[in-house]
Amino acid sequence: MDRVPILKIGDILLVSIQIDMEDQVALQLQEDLADRVVTTGCHGVIIDISGLDIVDSFVGRTLATIASISRVLDAETVVVGMRPAVAITLVELGLSLPGIRTALNVELGMALLARAKADERAGDSEWDEIDDEDAETAADAQP
Amino acid sequence: MDRVPILKIGDILLVSIQIDMEDQVALQLQEDLADRVVTTGCHGVIIDISGLDIVDSFVGRTLATIASISRVLDAETVVVGMRPAVAITLVELGLSLPGIRTALNVELGMALLARAKADERAGDSEWDEIDDEDAETAADAQP
Repeated sequence: MDRVPILKIGDILLVSIQIDMEDQVALQLQEDLADRVVTTGCHGVIIDISGLDIVDSFVGRTLATIASISRVLDAETVVVGMRPAVAITLVELGLSLPGIRTALNVELGMALLARAKADERAGDSEWDEIDDEDAETAADAQP
Repeated sequence: MDRVPILKIGDILLVSIQIDMEDQVALQLQEDLADRVVTTGCHGVIIDISGLDIVDSFVGRTLATIASISRVLDAETVVVGMRPAVAITLVELGLSLPGIRTALNVELGMALLARAKADERAGDSEWDEIDDEDAETAADAQP
């Protein structure tokens, strides 16, 4: 079975999705990622989707679920590398990826996570604001 | 056509190979990577193959070609994430990936590149030692 590799870079886990997100691949990725967050103690997850031509509702739900799982394990998730065409299609489909932070590329995603971590230390967690919305997303995102 | 995404992280380009390396994919990757090395001015390329179950002679040659192309563009290449089974099969097949540096994972690969860069600044380039071998590899690796 295809498995999406998870790369550890410092305090961040990086996932580059290039293969079709079928049910089993998505479930395996959620499981692998949760395991790695726990074993490594990383506080940030970056999911690169620059290899995807299409992000449908299933992939959107999978990303939301991963973000929710990571959050309860004390890691924040940022989705990076979205192609312009993907963003247009997503919005046209009425999918706005609620509860998911995005950045243009991996470097900006890392900067976003570093800033979030610094804010958290300063006791000013802007990430909490979207928690209620996320809880709903997580509830109906679980396949 | 499938394309392998290239991620820029600081002074390093990271490529995670997860799809089958057919001729067109390999050629496209070589071209994209050469372009990105030139446009970004990065001095290091890390190729993660933890997503590959099999590394045959074609993939081996492709990696050698990428390493050679990068080197003439003043960037060093490190292959990381090789599975134990892949290493065993490679050696059994008589493929020892000449001219290719390897590291266990992305973090160790980054450390290797940082050390190589520091050595280069100090005028002590250990990378030069394998240049002759690489030139031969490059000559018969070009598809």
